[in-house]
Amino acid sequence: MSSENAKEDCLAWAARDPSGVLSPYKFSRRATRDDDVSLRITHCGVCYADVVWTRNKHYDSKYPLVPGHEIVGIVQEVGRNVSQLKPGDHVGVGTYVNSCRECEFCDDRDEVNCVKGSVFTFNGLDSDGTITKGGYSSHIVVHERYCYKIPDGYPLAMAAPLLCAGVTVYNPMVRHNMNQPGKSLGVIGLGGLGHMAVKFGKAFGLQVTIFSTSASKKEEALSVLGADRFIVSSDEEQMKVLSKSLDFIIDTASGDHPFDPYMSLLKTRGVLVLVGFPGEVKFSPANLILGTRTVAGSVTGGTKVTQEMLEFCAANKIYPKTEVIPIQDVNEAIERLINRDVKYRFVIDIENSLK
Amino acid sequence: MSSENAKEDCLAWAARDPSGVLSPYKFSRRATRDDDVSLRITHCGVCYADVVWTRNKHYDSKYPLVPGHEIVGIVQEVGRNVSQLKPGDHVGVGTYVNSCRECEFCDDRDEVNCVKGSVFTFNGLDSDGTITKGGYSSHIVVHERYCYKIPDGYPLAMAAPLLCAGVTVYNPMVRHNMNQPGKSLGVIGLGGLGHMAVKFGKAFGLQVTIFSTSASKKEEALSVLGADRFIVSSDEEQMKVLSKSLDFIIDTASGDHPFDPYMSLLKTRGVLVLVGFPGEVKFSPANLILGTRTVAGSVTGGTKVTQEMLEFCAANKIYPKTEVIPIQDVNEAIERLINRDVKYRFVIDIENSLK
Repeated sequence: MSSENAKEDCLAWAARDPSGVLSPYKFSRRATRDDDVSLRITHCGVCYADVVWTRNKHYDSKYPLVPGHEIVGIVQEVGRNVSQLKPGDHVGVGTYVNSCRECEFCDDRDEVNCVKGSVFTFNGLDSDGTITKGGYSSHIVVHERYCYKIPDGYPLAMAAPLLCAGVTVYNPMVRHNMNQPGKSLGVIGLGGLGHMAVKFGKAFGLQVTIFSTSASKKEEALSVLGADRFIVSSDEEQMKVLSKSLDFIIDTASGDHPFDPYMSLLKTRGVLVLVGFPGEVKFSPANLILGTRTVAGSVTGGTKVTQEMLEFCAANKIYPKTEVIPIQDVNEAIERLINRDVKYRFVIDIENSLK
Repeated sequence: MSSENAKEDCLAWAARDPSGVLSPYKFSRRATRDDDVSLRITHCGVCYADVVWTRNKHYDSKYPLVPGHEIVGIVQEVGRNVSQLKPGDHVGVGTYVNSCRECEFCDDRDEVNCVKGSVFTFNGLDSDGTITKGGYSSHIVVHERYCYKIPDGYPLAMAAPLLCAGVTVYNPMVRHNMNQPGKSLGVIGLGGLGHMAVKFGKAFGLQVTIFSTSASKKEEALSVLGADRFIVSSDEEQMKVLSKSLDFIIDTASGDHPFDPYMSLLKTRGVLVLVGFPGEVKFSPANLILGTRTVAGSVTGGTKVTQEMLEFCAANKIYPKTEVIPIQDVNEAIERLINRDVKYRFVIDIENSLK
């Protein structure tokens, strides 16, 4: 132990039961260990995962539950073994805060796929037997391996959504070679993940088509996000025109939706990556086999690709579009998120409202 | 035209209606053009595609229909521009006999994915307006590009199944890097395609597990085909033991079957390739996303990979297990194929029985 003992000094908002209603809560974080970084949280993004676990949708929620895994803040203290970070550094913490650090995936800095399971940033069982608590809180103590350096000058509020939404789309886009200028990308769904896929797609030099259930987002998608085309997915005529025209599709839609209409838009050897979480995936074998197509899944990313993504965003001036709210508005924000009434990510201004 | 005019001298067996019953038939092949090879057919494999189109299961069959697209034979005549083949050569013809020869896929010698559509070896509309007729016939005339050299000494009867079943599994196995010794492969279904996947898997140095609905094939699968493990897929206990243990799966099953039990056997980043043709593909997103898994489709292969596959089989002494029949037994053979009563591919001895 390199620091003072823990005390019940962490302010937070927690859900107490499956109603998911969040309210003020106080608890203690562990003291800063030799390999740890303690950071004062300035901002935390609101991800759909926060809805899932505050409301016990997977039947495994442990209350009181402090959600939040798009965390940014400022380093306050570091353990004696920490060499890459120092007090005052701007850092981020994403969807996991621990892993075995021994398996092939950890060796590859792809800790999200740790063989023993990465420890989620909230509602996770940590190696010391404690249940992790997330970023709707005033500070957090994390092993340095799971802290990312936010590049100088990158606005902290905007960095928050990169830690989950950003890397969730960036990782498969790079892994499936979508960073080839001139290729074409379809993006299904225009929420937190989808709008980042559009931004990355444009930065990679792709021709980007958005598929959305609602025409209301069209103008902004084209003029503000810079997409090349906006298709209302129920418009069969427009969908038909795009048959076999796309190299890649990122499917960020979590609502149930058919896959065949999108699969048939892929060129031969085209790839659809699913990052949303619909009830099921179902399609005709012909749409997979006859075009030698691929459907792949992906979940956030390891520490290596996460740090790369942060640097890519800074270098290319890619900023999520956020709506910053005080913690006091978080219950309302979660209702609005459920109703898809957000452009495109809520970020809680922890430092100015959680007191 | 480099040769005599066409005459009605091609003996064949054809289906005349959707009953699919085959009977003797006579027609004319085109004369050998400058780029053509004319071959005397010695053998033709019996593929499930022959059932599909003789029985009009896709509602597009044109009768009389001469099936067969696993063709081997001996070159009789070549056109003046043909440089790679000469009379007496042993050659094969697979599932297509023409393509645009101009698109990116043709340029890549992946003609099966030709943008304008490759012309199937039977029941296909060729560029001269004729309907193609397949290998249940005494000879065939094909542009040299779609003829493969059968390596010296490779038995012609055994070469036949390589032209469809062989390349259908070899192509995705190589494309998805399954040729890495020490990795593990699951093979779903043990028919014409599945037994070739086992043979290629062992030649690639893989640990091969067969999943079959029937225990009856177990002993032969292990002792003759050389598989490492045989699992009856209804055995939930055995399936559970294999959770997250396989790098790759080749799914050759064309009957409807669940995907989730197999998806969950894949390791993180594992790949399932579908080459069979079930009614639908359906699985839980969790089985795709949480393991960063991939589901890919594939259909036979281009001329480049087909020739490579033939040479790989010769070099590694890989021979399909066949049951050779006279053409007179073909109707019975097709019934047996439908009932999965064949180990593992029927091959018609054209040269000795079609007279």
